[in-house]
Formats: sequence, C-alpha cells, structure tokens
Amino acid sequence: MTGFLRLIPVIEAIHIINRISPAVGTENVPLTAAYGRILAEDVQADTDIPGFDRSVKDGFAVNCADTVRASEAAPVPLTRVGQVVMGRGGNSPAIRPGECAYIPTGGALPKGADAVVMLEYCQDLGETVLAGRQVSPGENIIRADEDYARGEGVLAAGKHLKVQDIGVLAAVGVSRVAVRKRPVIGIVPTGIELVPPDQVPAAGEVRDVNSYLCGAFVEEMGGVPRYYGIVRDDRAELAALLSSALDECDAFLITGGSSKDDRDITADVIGSLGEVLAHGMALAPGKPTIIGKIGHAPVIGIPGHPASTRVVLAVLAGPLLRSLSGCTGRREAKQKAVLTRNIPSERGREEYVRVKLLGDEAVPLFGKSGLLNTLVESDGLIRILQGWEGLEAGCEVDVTLW
Amino acid sequence: MTGFLRLIPVIEAIHIINRISPAVGTENVPLTAAYGRILAEDVQADTDIPGFDRSVKDGFAVNCADTVRASEAAPVPLTRVGQVVMGRGGNSPAIRPGECAYIPTGGALPKGADAVVMLEYCQDLGETVLAGRQVSPGENIIRADEDYARGEGVLAAGKHLKVQDIGVLAAVGVSRVAVRKRPVIGIVPTGIELVPPDQVPAAGEVRDVNSYLCGAFVEEMGGVPRYYGIVRDDRAELAALLSSALDECDAFLITGGSSKDDRDITADVIGSLGEVLAHGMALAPGKPTIIGKIGHAPVIGIPGHPASTRVVLAVLAGPLLRSLSGCTGRREAKQKAVLTRNIPSERGREEYVRVKLLGDEAVPLFGKSGLLNTLVESDGLIRILQGWEGLEAGCEVDVTLW
Repeated sequence: MTGFLRLIPVIEAIHIINRISPAVGTENVPLTAAYGRILAEDVQADTDIPGFDRSVKDGFAVNCADTVRASEAAPVPLTRVGQVVMGRGGNSPAIRPGECAYIPTGGALPKGADAVVMLEYCQDLGETVLAGRQVSPGENIIRADEDYARGEGVLAAGKHLKVQDIGVLAAVGVSRVAVRKRPVIGIVPTGIELVPPDQVPAAGEVRDVNSYLCGAFVEEMGGVPRYYGIVRDDRAELAALLSSALDECDAFLITGGSSKDDRDITADVIGSLGEVLAHGMALAPGKPTIIGKIGHAPVIGIPGHPASTRVVLAVLAGPLLRSLSGCTGRREAKQKAVLTRNIPSERGREEYVRVKLLGDEAVPLFGKSGLLNTLVESDGLIRILQGWEGLEAGCEVDVTLW
Repeated sequence: MTGFLRLIPVIEAIHIINRISPAVGTENVPLTAAYGRILAEDVQADTDIPGFDRSVKDGFAVNCADTVRASEAAPVPLTRVGQVVMGRGGNSPAIRPGECAYIPTGGALPKGADAVVMLEYCQDLGETVLAGRQVSPGENIIRADEDYARGEGVLAAGKHLKVQDIGVLAAVGVSRVAVRKRPVIGIVPTGIELVPPDQVPAAGEVRDVNSYLCGAFVEEMGGVPRYYGIVRDDRAELAALLSSALDECDAFLITGGSSKDDRDITADVIGSLGEVLAHGMALAPGKPTIIGKIGHAPVIGIPGHPASTRVVLAVLAGPLLRSLSGCTGRREAKQKAVLTRNIPSERGREEYVRVKLLGDEAVPLFGKSGLLNTLVESDGLIRILQGWEGLEAGCEVDVTLW
C-alpha cells in the first residue's frame, strides 16, 4: 500500500460525495407503493382533519353547562333526543339545553353539544339519561381542525416515508404521491482472481462477494442495483464497460480486487474517463478508497476485502445513496453499549471496528479484515475519531447497527 | 366499551398468534433477490473458504525461520525467486529456505512459505530482498479453512438476511437460495364512516387510514399486502368478502370502525366463519382487539383509531408476520433514553406510550389517541408492563423505534 499524497478526512470525503451527487428525478406512485420511498414534495392537509368535531369515546353528547356539579352520587337527568349515526354528520340531531344524544366513538358531535360524557358514567333509562360526571367544554372531543388545519404542513420533502407517514398521507387525501426515483447504481467488481458464486474457486481464486454486498446495501438504501459482470483487471475492459453503462446508471460502485495493481487500474480508468476527486481516505479500513466522477455519475472505488467493503459502504456509500435520493434524514439504528475490551487505534485515521452485542456490552471483533465470519457475527460498528488513541474497556460507545 | 369476560395478557395473545400462524412455504430465488428475505434452510460452506492460504497484505512470502531476529537495523537478505500472480494459485513459485517471493494482498501463499513480511518492512534490491522484520508462522495469512471449513454451518434457517449475510452466501457458493415466501396479508377496513383517500370526507365521514398503515407495516415486515375495499359495516358483506378472499391470503388484518357496533360485527363474522380465540386484551391502546382463525388463516381484528392501530400492529401484527414468515429472529431497533415526564398507567393493562426522542431524552406524547399528528411526530414506543403503576420522570426506558 503506497503512500498517498494526502489522506482526506472522512467528513471531507462525505462533503465531496454530497457535492457531486444531486438528487435524481421524481415520479408519481400510488400511495400503496410509497412505503420506504423518499417524499419529493412538501405535503399539506387538503382540508381540516378530522373535518368535524368528533367524539373519541362512546357516550352521550351534552351541553356541558348541564353537567355542572354532576357526580355519580348526584347525577343530572337529561332528555335523550336521539342518537348520532356513524358517517352521517349532517343528519345528527341538534340538542338543546337539558338534552343529550347517544354518540359512538368517532361520531360527529351534534349541534348544540360541546362535550361527551363517557358511557360508563351514564345511566341509560330510555327517554332519560342520568349523567354522573361533570364535563368541561371539548372533553372527549377532537376539534374539526385539531389534527391538521387545512393547508397546514404535514410532511416535508426529503422525508423517508415510514409506516405512520403512509397513514397520514391517506388522511390528508393523498392517493398518489411524488417520490424520488430509486437511484440506479452500477456495480462493477474488478479482480483477476474473481469467479462468480456458482463456480468452485480453484487455488488462488475467490468468489465475487463484493457485488452481492454492494447490491444488497443499495437495496437497503432504497436504490436499484444494476449488476455488471466481473472485470478481470483489464483497463480497456473496465473503461469500455463504464462508458457504455453511463447512460444506465446514476452512480457506480467499483470494488477493487484486493491487490494494489487493481486499485491503480480503477483510479487510472476513472481519471481517463472523468476525474479522480480523492484517492486515499483517513479511514480504517478503507484507506485506498477512491472518489471520482465520470460524466454525471459519481463513482466510489472501494478497495479490498469484503469486510472492508462493508465498512466503506456504511461510511461512504450510505451518504451517496442518501444524497442521490434527496433524503434529508434517515434514521440510523444505533445502540449504546459498554465496550468490553480496549481498542488501540492509529491516530491518523477514523477507524471503524466491528462489534458483537451481548446484552448491553459491545465486544470488538478484531479478526483479520479478510474474514467473513466475523462480519456475519457482528451487529454493527463503532467509530473511533481521527486523532483518538483508541477506546478503553468500560467506556460507553454508540454502536451503529447493521 | 363493554366489559370483556377476561382481558388476556399480551404475552398470551402473542402465544396464540404464534400457535395459529405456521410458516408459509418456501421458494428459490436468485441471490440478488434475497436481501431482506427469511432464509428457509440451514446453509453450510460448500468448500473451505478461502480455500487456500491467502495473504492479507502486500509483501513478501517467506519461510519465517529465515526471519528470526530480523529487524530494521539488521535486515535478513533473501533471494527473490519470482512473484505470486493473483488468481493463479497453482502456478505460484515454490520457495526454499533463504528465498522469498513477492505476494499481493489476496495472493495464494507459495509452497514452502509460511508467512508474509509486509512490504513496508522490506527493502527491494531486485534479486535480493532485505526483510527487516521477524514474522511468526501464519503471520499476515488467512489459512485455507480459517473463514469457513467445508461443511461448516454458515447461516441458520429463519435468519432475516442482512447485507453481510448476502455477501457470505456468495462466498459459500450460493447463487440461488431457499427463502420463505412472502406471506400475503388481506387487509380489510370496516366502518360505515370510511371513504377512500381520494374523496373529500363529508361531515361525519373520515378517510380510510388504517388500510394504508396496515399495508405499509406488512411491507416493512416482508409480507405482501392485499388491499380489499372498504366494508361498510355490513355483516353479510364482510362474511362474503372473507370467504372469497380466503384462498388468496395467508392471514387477515381487519380494522374495525371506531364504534363498538362495528367491532361486534367483526367478532360475529369471525365467529360465524371460524373461531374467535381471544376478544379483549390487557393492552392499552388496543383493548378490544380480536384474535381468531378462519380456515387456515389467522385473523387479527384491530380496533379503533389509526394511532391505536399503529400500536396494535407493532405489538401483535409483528409477531403474526414473523411467525408466518418463519423468522426466528429479527432485530427491533431500540434505543435507551431518559423519560422526561411521569407517565401514570392503568395497572391492569400493558400500556404503550408514544414518545419523541430529543437526544437522549424520551418525551411522552400524550395527545388524544385519535390524533395522527402525534403519531407522525413520534419516534417509537415505550412499554409499561401490566401491573406497573407507571413510570417516573428521570428513569431509563427502552424505546422501540418505528
């Protein structure tokens, strides 16, 4: 691994990635296809929600002035004038002082009523109802515009749509929704030693793992992976592939073979077709990572072993996918844990260490970076910032789960 | 809300759900379609991985006996006998005592070598290489079966396949993989007051939100939602729909209208076509939830307002989907936080309170259960176990994120 002129800090790498990765276009999809997508436009309530004063209990709609000092011991008799029928606000009975009407949960409050006494506090005698509880104005009621007022902002563009967001979009009348297209990410594995998973590798050969790691990660981030075949360390082949694939993809992830020569090829080809913006990160693992641009397409050249690839995906391809998909915030699952062992660190690089969670404890998995078994065993990553000498056993760490 | 004969504890409800929800069948999919699916069979390594002794560094393959006492100040001269070419294990040079060969990261260790000295500790003089570091057997090498030995278990059936799992499947030769089918969940909203999202509700009407909440949740859990239209509180219509849909679905989620009458219809119809196994949970919100079975299909009848529906989905439909999909473990995203306010609780029910996270603090969102805005604002749920009187401000809580 030769010296790089300058190892750029991770935060600077992410800044470059954001700069060269504008959001892709938008499309309209039915609400039933919007879960997990990125909202492309601000959404406002089209009308007051719920749109009418609505009971949140089964009970009797009353004028609360009638219930002053009502109690179980001294209930107030009210004349029953009918009942609210679900779904028919306009036809509800109006009530006058001294009167009440049965109202189911979700029913529209009748004219003249300003509160609901819950069923369990009332004694239903037929024409007369004994209200055994004093209520105040608005009690057990949602006001017509209490959830959202017409025109009020409901969700902002850039939101990663979760289950409850889909529900609220239905509530405000959105049956089709503008979302960002799924960015298409070209996945290009390089390395003369690579064979596809369905071949048994001969001595010296290894199966292409990185394509599948990259593809699954792209799916996790809401993108569409486009798999190109293995490029066997040939400059011309890689250049031809990237040139012809450029129209099909919004970005590329090129995984290097594990040797230095392969990495040089990747950087050379990116440079010949476009521009290498960074080569060498203050990142461990992942130091030889390349960031570049070919035409419109940002390119990340990911070095090394699959276990390192997985880290670079989390640290740098995550921001790439978020930026391309116009996502302003997407929660990363994190968990606090207590570190069980000291972790020394090289001070000059931001270091990511795989850990396994055992209850509230984070056990570092130091294994050799080429091993997949520790990767599969791991629950996530902890980060040691550049400049730190390491972390001590017993300290609290944030584990980014994966 | 009438009294139920007995409110069954949440854990018992989950037990019933698991009992009536056997795993659906399996299907074979390409590895590129397996991300997020549930593995249906145990997977073993088809061969030793990596399959040959493999260097993890760029450097020189040596016989480590030759490096005893080698140091930067007193390097050991070794005769260079060639170089390892990536991807060609069989053709690598054999080395004898006193010899070395250049080896790239990932290269196959030549016969006669038992360790690698990193490039930065060597001085390359052409025919002679000065090794400036003592290495021990196996140093900078992954053994042929160190990652996985042939036949060794790699992933177990029931695993929810994450990014790194997809990678390791590629490594062990899996190009097609047996996964559980996606359970098909029929979604049936009932309520005379409901209108579809593309209609502006008249007074007393509300838009169907629960279908979309349920559908998005089913997708999140890896199932396929099948949307049936709004059933307007008619026993015959609901019974006819469920009967005809039975062949198309592995389970049903029926969301009740918000009034007690609607809920009675749901229980009656489930009882007439099959069996009501539980009606009334020690759960808040969600007390009137129904669990039943029609033919092969488990059915959950979910009461009430969308905000309550979201909770019942998390607490009971989650186990339903996991059980149907044969999933033995699926991590829930959780976060520890400090509660900012007291939460009183009804002792008789397991209670779920929506909270918003502000840094490390969990702010309870008490809002009326019918409001969607607090649902969208919330980051997750905290649970107050049955029998507890509540939680005090300042205590540490586990927030299940959603």
